Amino acid sequence: MNSLENTLFHELDSVTLVDSHSHINPREPAAKNLADLLGYHYYTELVHSAGMPREQIEQQGLSAKDKVERLFQRLQKIDHTVQWDWFLDIGQDLLDLPRESIVAEHWEQVFDRASDAMQRPDWTEHVLRQSKVERIFLTNDFDDRLDDFDTHRYIPCLRTDDLVFHLHLERTGQRLESASGIAVHSLSDVHQAIGQLFQYFKKNGAKACAISLPPWFSPHAVSLDDPSSTSCWQRMRSAPHSISEDDRRTLANWVFWRLAEFCVEYRLPFDLMIGVNRRVYPGGVYQGQDLYDSRWSMIQYSELFNAFPNLKFPISVLASVSNQELVDYAWIFPNVLPHGHWWYSNTPSFIEHDLKARIDAVPRNKLLGYYSDAYKLEFILPKYRMYKKILAKILAQSIVIDRGKSESFAVALGQQILRGNVDSAFLETNETKD
Amino acid sequence: MNSLENTLFHELDSVTLVDSHSHINPREPAAKNLADLLGYHYYTELVHSAGMPREQIEQQGLSAKDKVERLFQRLQKIDHTVQWDWFLDIGQDLLDLPRESIVAEHWEQVFDRASDAMQRPDWTEHVLRQSKVERIFLTNDFDDRLDDFDTHRYIPCLRTDDLVFHLHLERTGQRLESASGIAVHSLSDVHQAIGQLFQYFKKNGAKACAISLPPWFSPHAVSLDDPSSTSCWQRMRSAPHSISEDDRRTLANWVFWRLAEFCVEYRLPFDLMIGVNRRVYPGGVYQGQDLYDSRWSMIQYSELFNAFPNLKFPISVLASVSNQELVDYAWIFPNVLPHGHWWYSNTPSFIEHDLKARIDAVPRNKLLGYYSDAYKLEFILPKYRMYKKILAKILAQSIVIDRGKSESFAVALGQQILRGNVDSAFLETNETKD
Amino acid sequence: MNSLENTLFHELDSVTLVDSHSHINPREPAAKNLADLLGYHYYTELVHSAGMPREQIEQQGLSAKDKVERLFQRLQKIDHTVQWDWFLDIGQDLLDLPRESIVAEHWEQVFDRASDAMQRPDWTEHVLRQSKVERIFLTNDFDDRLDDFDTHRYIPCLRTDDLVFHLHLERTGQRLESASGIAVHSLSDVHQAIGQLFQYFKKNGAKACAISLPPWFSPHAVSLDDPSSTSCWQRMRSAPHSISEDDRRTLANWVFWRLAEFCVEYRLPFDLMIGVNRRVYPGGVYQGQDLYDSRWSMIQYSELFNAFPNLKFPISVLASVSNQELVDYAWIFPNVLPHGHWWYSNTPSFIEHDLKARIDAVPRNKLLGYYSDAYKLEFILPKYRMYKKILAKILAQSIVIDRGKSESFAVALGQQILRGNVDSAFLETNETKD
Repeated sequence: MNSLENTLFHELDSVTLVDSHSHINPREPAAKNLADLLGYHYYTELVHSAGMPREQIEQQGLSAKDKVERLFQRLQKIDHTVQWDWFLDIGQDLLDLPRESIVAEHWEQVFDRASDAMQRPDWTEHVLRQSKVERIFLTNDFDDRLDDFDTHRYIPCLRTDDLVFHLHLERTGQRLESASGIAVHSLSDVHQAIGQLFQYFKKNGAKACAISLPPWFSPHAVSLDDPSSTSCWQRMRSAPHSISEDDRRTLANWVFWRLAEFCVEYRLPFDLMIGVNRRVYPGGVYQGQDLYDSRWSMIQYSELFNAFPNLKFPISVLASVSNQELVDYAWIFPNVLPHGHWWYSNTPSFIEHDLKARIDAVPRNKLLGYYSDAYKLEFILPKYRMYKKILAKILAQSIVIDRGKSESFAVALGQQILRGNVDSAFLETNETKD
Repeated sequence: MNSLENTLFHELDSVTLVDSHSHINPREPAAKNLADLLGYHYYTELVHSAGMPREQIEQQGLSAKDKVERLFQRLQKIDHTVQWDWFLDIGQDLLDLPRESIVAEHWEQVFDRASDAMQRPDWTEHVLRQSKVERIFLTNDFDDRLDDFDTHRYIPCLRTDDLVFHLHLERTGQRLESASGIAVHSLSDVHQAIGQLFQYFKKNGAKACAISLPPWFSPHAVSLDDPSSTSCWQRMRSAPHSISEDDRRTLANWVFWRLAEFCVEYRLPFDLMIGVNRRVYPGGVYQGQDLYDSRWSMIQYSELFNAFPNLKFPISVLASVSNQELVDYAWIFPNVLPHGHWWYSNTPSFIEHDLKARIDAVPRNKLLGYYSDAYKLEFILPKYRMYKKILAKILAQSIVIDRGKSESFAVALGQQILRGNVDSAFLETNETKD
Repeated sequence: MNSLENTLFHELDSVTLVDSHSHINPREPAAKNLADLLGYHYYTELVHSAGMPREQIEQQGLSAKDKVERLFQRLQKIDHTVQWDWFLDIGQDLLDLPRESIVAEHWEQVFDRASDAMQRPDWTEHVLRQSKVERIFLTNDFDDRLDDFDTHRYIPCLRTDDLVFHLHLERTGQRLESASGIAVHSLSDVHQAIGQLFQYFKKNGAKACAISLPPWFSPHAVSLDDPSSTSCWQRMRSAPHSISEDDRRTLANWVFWRLAEFCVEYRLPFDLMIGVNRRVYPGGVYQGQDLYDSRWSMIQYSELFNAFPNLKFPISVLASVSNQELVDYAWIFPNVLPHGHWWYSNTPSFIEHDLKARIDAVPRNKLLGYYSDAYKLEFILPKYRMYKKILAKILAQSIVIDRGKSESFAVALGQQILRGNVDSAFLETNETKD
């Protein structure tokens, strides 16, 4: 890092964050011990990929301490990765452990030290303070309770994968009935029930509706009483276990289109995470089974973007080869906003490549810089730090050096990307419905 | 820019240019006021994307001055983009306005200052001189007049999108009859009429035939009297409004193949701009509605490249993910030449990525570096400057530092990429037919 | 190269290499004269692409000296490419010729000097020593003899393209019968015959089975006695010249699946080189006719990876747009290993882009850095040098600077990528079958 990059980084590092996508459990937001951190799928899937059998990683009844010991034996296989670098940052900045001390031979001291720190009553606050994060979006199942945590700090977000892709499962129907209080016999009942969910979420401070989508998905307009969707529904009700792939896709499209309508009605951005195929490697560890087919195009969503001009679509793509399409659709469509660097593209080489292209040509009020995607608060700090360093580097090179702007211009742009646009896209425009 | 890059840039910056693709109107090549510049689709589509309604941008009867005032209010949303940087370059280098002065609060002074300068009788010459450009390729409709402007300076280029993709429209047939003087009743008449166009263009100094192509297009050999094309034509003539998508594609392919044959006959390079889907966002501003599906492959053109070994195909691709295919097809096929950095790939991050790959492995006599794609002369200077800076950077790194070549070697290579190959590909080899 | 990169490069440059993929002929591994080097398809296809007719390049009966003279006249068209840089490296480091002296005007001195050197009895040893390579994988036809060369130095590798894609050709059947000693009447005979090949190769020290695959290939499980494959086989036997494309693909899949089974049985990694379309440009020079369609996905191989969890798949992809899929499948699947930088992606800009992404997120024991793909030993040195410089640069930036690791950490990682993993993936785990 040269001195200009360093200056920019420090300015960005002082920004108080709102993290616009995470999987934090608001009732247990921080880790209780290192197994909660090293159990993160990034570590388990990488050590599994490096050769450790799944049975050893996921052995039933293994204590947290034994699990950490076991993982540490293999972690040197991934000690050069950016994911391991996140863990070292946590050790250093949250646990006061020198990076060099976090090695297999000292696993036990590291474990114990962490456990001690994490038992302290102020651990969660300590992590939040060090991470400079004040609000965090959640990923809530549609039937999650939202009344037993601080929804100002932990912002509810209605995750809808199950409604769109698993409505044919009996379990989903039961959950929907139970969450909405509506008996679901027809598509019209489904519609009403989903409306109930939006109402409940909105009332409890939800700021987004979100979904992850497979590469084949290509939504098209379908009316509430579309006859062919209605037929699908009826076939499904009479023979839930033999529903065809085609029928499932028809239903998925019908539900998806309803969600977009409700997002308009309830003024919630519709957060699309596009490109994942689930269970490509069924033998993989928990959460380490999904991959993708990069052959899809944003053009699959053009009908959607045209149909809902006043609905904001923050969009994440799984692979860097989709990034230019994302940039260009955001450059043309007012309602398309590039959102963060998701999962397999959340590594420095792809972030740098993708972010540079976004900063070259997307309006500055639409650049939703980053989110942590974290399951535990501890990961917010190192992931954002990685991002902020790259952002500083690009601002230095593209904005200050190449385009001759001032440092303060670059800082203001960085602040807007890092924080300002999260406020304007998700928080400021979401007045309640009535 | 380090000192080596700087030296190389200054050498490249002294090259007199021939701009091998533009949309300049030779009868009104330069801007009359700032609305002619800020009305460029890059600005209107970006401010629209940033939130300004189309109706405000394209309001009927809006004066140039009011339009500029209105746009300036939103331009701070795109003041970090490379497109805005082009405008600042114009202000600074052509209008003598300090970059810092070109801000919303001073919009009126900027407008007035520009209007004054642009009224001067030597404005066009001033722009050309400052831009160091001596000849500029046009994009002529097939029925454009070519006898009322200086075709040495403004080189005609036969643009053929309408012939290939809109021949089924009554209007196109009428225009073709009127331009060629041939009554068009059969495909054979169409063939003759197109021949007339080539003759007229060639006689008037045309140096290329060009077309933009959608991702699905995949040309294949078809004879002049192909029965299935003939049937399509007849169906179209008898029911022009109900022509099927398939029939349109069959006709498109037939016309396209004829164009390639005429290009051989008239020794005109066939300039292919591959990858654009039109009107993906019909609600967008003028010229800000087109996007694309990046899932296409150069292999769709392999039959064409094989069938016309002596025809040069300068090729532009819309998305950077197609660049390696372009590099590799140019590496293998003698008649494939990578041409410039088109539209959505005309931003620094993609140019750098794409150009580096081209310089690594494409023969030096085939690298057609850049074209402006400009609608007004004023944009030639800043766009080429952006390109020359990146070219200098890559020559410095890849050629001088990594491959240990001398500065003069790098300069000569840069000159050839920037200018020499335009001469050899388009200008020197196009003797008249008879 | 800064001082850190330089230090790392010199450490990497001292590593003794095992080259895990080449096309070396072990009976004539080194060049006899410059025509053996400049006849490499990289030079012939590039000068052909630059404008030299194939007939001049491949003229029957042309002497080596005349061929070199002829090529040298066109080589200035590619004197900026990385491929030419390889040749200059050979001149400088193996022939003691200053780079500046290797120009068209001095072609004859260069030719003679090279011929003298190459006649010396120790030339091969000299090249190996200078290149620091001790073992080299071959690409053997399935019916190659393996008993007349040093299989410790030149490691046999069973190449299987013909078996999978050309089994319908009479010639392939004959070769298979002759190599295996088994009369091939049924698929079961084919199976037995292929088993014989594996046995012979394994007995003679083979360390891999390899194949190159077209973009459309998508293997799926098929049993030994699959009825539909059996029907294909019978149709083929009764009418070998009219076999349908579908039948050929069915047979290809059947053979491929058998190969995977034999690889497990004989403990040979199955080296997949994915993405090439053959003879896209039939008018091209020898070995300069193949290109590709980049629209394929690693997901086409997910059934394979799941079915053979204990079989290692070193994988090369042809285009950089497939690199992130390769990284991510290697990140998740324990049996997927990214292997080198193949053919059209073996240029500095793509290597840098692709390698950075691999180092960010693939376990370190799975990074198979590089192979030469060389036809003559002389190319091992310059190709590996190119790679080592890029590897040093990435280790410096990503590992030492960005992740704050020590130089010795970076060196150890580089050594493992360059050499250690070749040993562990190919050499150490391949005990003989019984």
